[in-house]
Order: sequence, then structure tokens, then C-alpha cells
Amino acid sequence: MSYVKPLDFKHGRIDMSHGSGGRASAQLIESLFAAAFDNEFLRQGNDGAVLPLPPPDCRLVMSTDAHVVSPLFFPGGDIGSLSVHGTINDVAMMGATPLWLSASFILEEGLPLADLQRIVQSMADAAQEAGVAIVTGDTKVVERNKGDGMYISTTGIGYLAKGNAPAGSRARAGDAILLSGTLGDHGMAILSQREGLQFDSPIRSDSASLHGLVAAMQTSSVDIHVLRDPTRGGLATTLNEIARQSKVGMLLDEAAIPLNRTVAAACEFLGLDPLYVANEGKLVAICRAEDADKLLTAMRAHPLGQAAALIGQVVVDASCFVEMRTRLGGRRMVDMLTGEQLPRIC
Amino acid sequence: MSYVKPLDFKHGRIDMSHGSGGRASAQLIESLFAAAFDNEFLRQGNDGAVLPLPPPDCRLVMSTDAHVVSPLFFPGGDIGSLSVHGTINDVAMMGATPLWLSASFILEEGLPLADLQRIVQSMADAAQEAGVAIVTGDTKVVERNKGDGMYISTTGIGYLAKGNAPAGSRARAGDAILLSGTLGDHGMAILSQREGLQFDSPIRSDSASLHGLVAAMQTSSVDIHVLRDPTRGGLATTLNEIARQSKVGMLLDEAAIPLNRTVAAACEFLGLDPLYVANEGKLVAICRAEDADKLLTAMRAHPLGQAAALIGQVVVDASCFVEMRTRLGGRRMVDMLTGEQLPRIC
Repeated sequence: MSYVKPLDFKHGRIDMSHGSGGRASAQLIESLFAAAFDNEFLRQGNDGAVLPLPPPDCRLVMSTDAHVVSPLFFPGGDIGSLSVHGTINDVAMMGATPLWLSASFILEEGLPLADLQRIVQSMADAAQEAGVAIVTGDTKVVERNKGDGMYISTTGIGYLAKGNAPAGSRARAGDAILLSGTLGDHGMAILSQREGLQFDSPIRSDSASLHGLVAAMQTSSVDIHVLRDPTRGGLATTLNEIARQSKVGMLLDEAAIPLNRTVAAACEFLGLDPLYVANEGKLVAICRAEDADKLLTAMRAHPLGQAAALIGQVVVDASCFVEMRTRLGGRRMVDMLTGEQLPRIC
Repeated sequence: MSYVKPLDFKHGRIDMSHGSGGRASAQLIESLFAAAFDNEFLRQGNDGAVLPLPPPDCRLVMSTDAHVVSPLFFPGGDIGSLSVHGTINDVAMMGATPLWLSASFILEEGLPLADLQRIVQSMADAAQEAGVAIVTGDTKVVERNKGDGMYISTTGIGYLAKGNAPAGSRARAGDAILLSGTLGDHGMAILSQREGLQFDSPIRSDSASLHGLVAAMQTSSVDIHVLRDPTRGGLATTLNEIARQSKVGMLLDEAAIPLNRTVAAACEFLGLDPLYVANEGKLVAICRAEDADKLLTAMRAHPLGQAAALIGQVVVDASCFVEMRTRLGGRRMVDMLTGEQLPRIC
């Protein structure tokens, strides 16, 4: 085979040949992706991965996410770690145990190889920390000005034990609404980075894999009716979706909603409502009111649920309205996000 | 809930709010994606799909592909049908039966809703024809000039019966190399469309789902050593990959390689080698020489394998060279694709 110059990870850039499917593609895959993600499945080296069947008596879960966050790097993470956390969380929110991820990359011509390497390593670290293997992938290259550095789509497979699984349609009037921690950290971290805003204590994204927290919650043996991560559109949109799916209303208690002080200040300064700001390491759980304490205890015992709180309750409401008792004692409607608050947040 | 104007599929365009995760996203999902792809899994309406476990005693197969083809529409297909065929084929090339697909969309602000609708319908038709369900998805929107209309990443899950499965590493010296039909139709269809070239008989992409052909081949009960679809990089690159994985050489017979006459003329006119042009509805199969006739008969009995041919044999070669006996009686090296022949082909 003819000689191929090693990739220059210090000064090199992605060019169209890296998406050709030919020699340059093979080199990129072997020297970067295969090396960083290395596992027995990826090593099969075929068009896809052959995977063992999960335990019998369970069901499969499949979820996918495109990631287009801008900028690619932000305090607390980057598009790589986000693309792993985001899809693991979607699988985990089904009550399932995530096992495998696929990753498909769309790279813009001119992307520095150093950036790509850093992002791929960050994906590998996030996957390893989560105990999930990236088993297959694909890479395409688009011309300069036809992308924005890179986009990553990840798809996750997990398995779900038989029995009651959480679903958006299972909220019942009287149920308790729990939130695993502070609101808005991811969105405000991205926005601060984008706008060059500086705060006394820097805002870091909460981007994290939540399946460990979910597993801890499941050991409490509480029947979790609904589990959802309030990403794009924030808590307000997530709760409205659940209210519509379950045909119920919700009443939140503003004073009970945990907020990082700097995030609260930044939101006030920028005129943003933290209820609509994206999170990437938080979950909402809905369970019977009498189970709330038990579930909260399980959440608070996990590092990602230390600030978990009971933030409201499910109520009878044929209009499926989400409302909130404000700190000042009033009531306000909490509608779904309309329009676009923060584009390219995940 | 406040009133939302129905989507204008005639004159409307994608705007940033369609990627917000809020009301406009929900409207797009409900009135377009959910309506077109409708199936019991998608209807669950959660962050992912819960799927039944495939038959016991089998293994799972997972494969993913990003699709960035330009232009979005071409003779014989569009990015939608291609994104279904491409991933189904990757699953089928593992010898597996494809069951479910996920689809993640990256849309460029300004994309006409009419184009999106046409593409989504084309995906739905391709999936239905293939008997595969699109069970979960995601949609993101990027600003004008940060995309190129749209990109689609699809991931497929299938199941693989126990027993010998085809793999790139299983080619053995003496094996026969079969090709299911003519070379280069997809790549030349895209190129003709892109360059505005006109031929007496228009060149159409061969984009098609190959799992039916694979199933027909499997009923022959021939042990298929290798199965691969020669997409990006063409037949030459695919065979070089297999040669390297199996540590063998290959000797092709140029006169035996089926070529559409118009494609041959177009390649000659443009100075392109059909061995390097992409295909999206063809497969290479490698089996023992004594099984070749049986497998060819099975291939030719299927509509997508009518022009199947024995095109060469696997030979002992420590250098893993792929060579070809030319029509003129000489021998030439057939190397992997170097550089980029046709960008954005799939």
C-alpha cells in the first residue's frame, strides 16, 4: 500500500478527502476514532456492530439526538461529552439501562484536527465514565460554510426490565413533581460563553449522564410514573408536554425550585426565565405523593441529586395548564416555550 | 393552549423556532414527522422508543450513517430515501434482518417546508417498502449558511440469527467474488444532476434497500463469507478494505464487471473510473468457488440481482493487493481511493 503521511493533530485540518470513504477516511477512523473509542464491538471493523442480546424478559430502548451546540467548547463540557450525555439521558429517562451508542459525525472542511481530537477524547471519556461503549459510527465531510465546525448525532440502545416503566402519560392528579437539582446551568453556561459574559463564579454546564441517578432512584422501589430531562425548552416545556400527554394540570411552587445564585442573577440581568433555559444534567420525576419522601431521599444520596426538591404537584385540569405559585403569593401560567429563546443550545 | 397557525407546507420555511424544543418544534413533529412515519413505537411519544426483544438465540446489529448528499433531490431518489436505504443496507450487509430505524435531522434555516415534506414522505415510503419502522427521531435547526438544506443521520437495529455471519475478515484464497449488478449508477446520477449533464437515457441512482436480496441469498443456504455494499469509494475501495481485513489478495476480471452503457460512456467522458464511483443498491458477496453458481442463481432470481455476475477471485497475497485483468489482456493494480473523487455523494 502506498505511504500515507501521519495525521498532523497539531496543525492539520479536515479536508474533503476525510469524507471520501477512501484512504484518508480510513486513516482518520483508524488513528483517531478507533483508537479513542476502542472496544470489542468497534474492533469488529464491519459496516455495523454485532451485539449480544440483552437479558431475556426485557425490552429494548432506542433513542437518538442530533447535537449542534455552538460554541463547540463551553465551561463544563463540549459537543463531544454533550452528545454522549444527551443520548444516554434519553435512554435513561425511559427507565432503561443504556448499553451502546452509535456516533455519526458531520465535519466542516477546515475544522482543526486538534479540536476534533479534543472532542473525540471527551466523548471517549464521557462514554467510559458512563460504562457505555461507542460501538459503530460514520463520518462525513461538508464544504466550508456548509457546516459549523461539527455536528454529532448519537443513537443509544438500552434495555428496560419488565414491569412499570416511566412514561409521559402516567402522571396522575395528586402526584408529586420532583426536580433533581438547580435549573438553567447548561443554557446559561453556553450563553455566557457565546456572549463573553463574566460572573464572579463562572457558570458551568450541568451536562452529565443521569443513568446512575436513575438506577439509584430505582433501588428505592418507588413506582416512578414519569421521568424526563428538561433540555431544550426547559422545565416549563417539559412539564407542559407531560401535562398534555397525561391530560392533567400542574401547580408548581416557585420558592421550592432550586436555582444556582449566579444563574439566577444572570437570568435576571438578561431578562431570561430560568424555567425555559436548557438543562443537560437534571431530571424531573413524578410519583405518588406518599412516595415522594422515599424517592427524594434516594435522589439526594446520589451526587447528581443532592439538591433534589419537591417542586409541585399534579392536579386535575382538563385544559392541561401548568401554573406556578410565585414567591409573592400570586399565580402565573407557565406555558410551553413559544419562539426560540436560545438557539443551538444542544 | 394558545392558538398555533397551521404549518404552510406550500410557501413556509424552516425557522430557528422549529429547533427550539418548544411549541413550533412540537407542531413540526406532530404535523409532519409523526404523521408520515406513524407506527406504534413512534406513537409512544417519549424520549425514545420501547421495542420488543428480537427472537432469542440471535444477536443484535447496530449501524449508523450520516447523509449529506448534494443536491437533496436526484434522479432515482433523494436524501430521504437514501438515508433509509443506506442504513438498512449497512444492517443487511452484516447478514442481519433490519427492524427499526432512528432518524435525526439537522435542518438549515430557510429550508422550504415543501422540500422537507417531500423528503420526509420519501423516507416514509422507503421505510414502508422495506418493512422497517422509523421509531424515534430528533430535529435540530442551524442558522442560514451553517448547513446545506438538510442532513439526516439514521441508525438501524436488526437481528442476526446464530451461525456463520458474513464479515470482512472471512475472505479466503480461492473464494469467488460476486457483484449484484451494474457499477456506478448512484454516483453518476448525482454527478449528472449536479453538473446539469444530459444523456440519451438519463442515469438514475440505484439507491435501494438490499435486505430482500440478502434474504433471497440466505435461502440458498450458501455460507456467505463476506457481504459489503460498495458505496463511497466504490468497488475498488470496498475490495481493498476486505483484502486488508482478510489478509488476502484479489484478482478481478474487467470484462465480467457489469456496467450500464450510459454510465460507462459518462465515466469515459468525465475521466472517471467506475470502480471508484459510489453505488447505493449493489452488494459484493464472497463465497467458496464451488458455491458461486448456487449463490448467483439465487441473486439473479431477485429483482435487485438480475445482472449479478462473478467478477473475480480471492488469491493468496501477503501484500493484500487488488489487481484486475483488463479487457486488453493486461493487469493493473486497483488501489483504494486516494483523495476525493466525488464529494457529498451520500
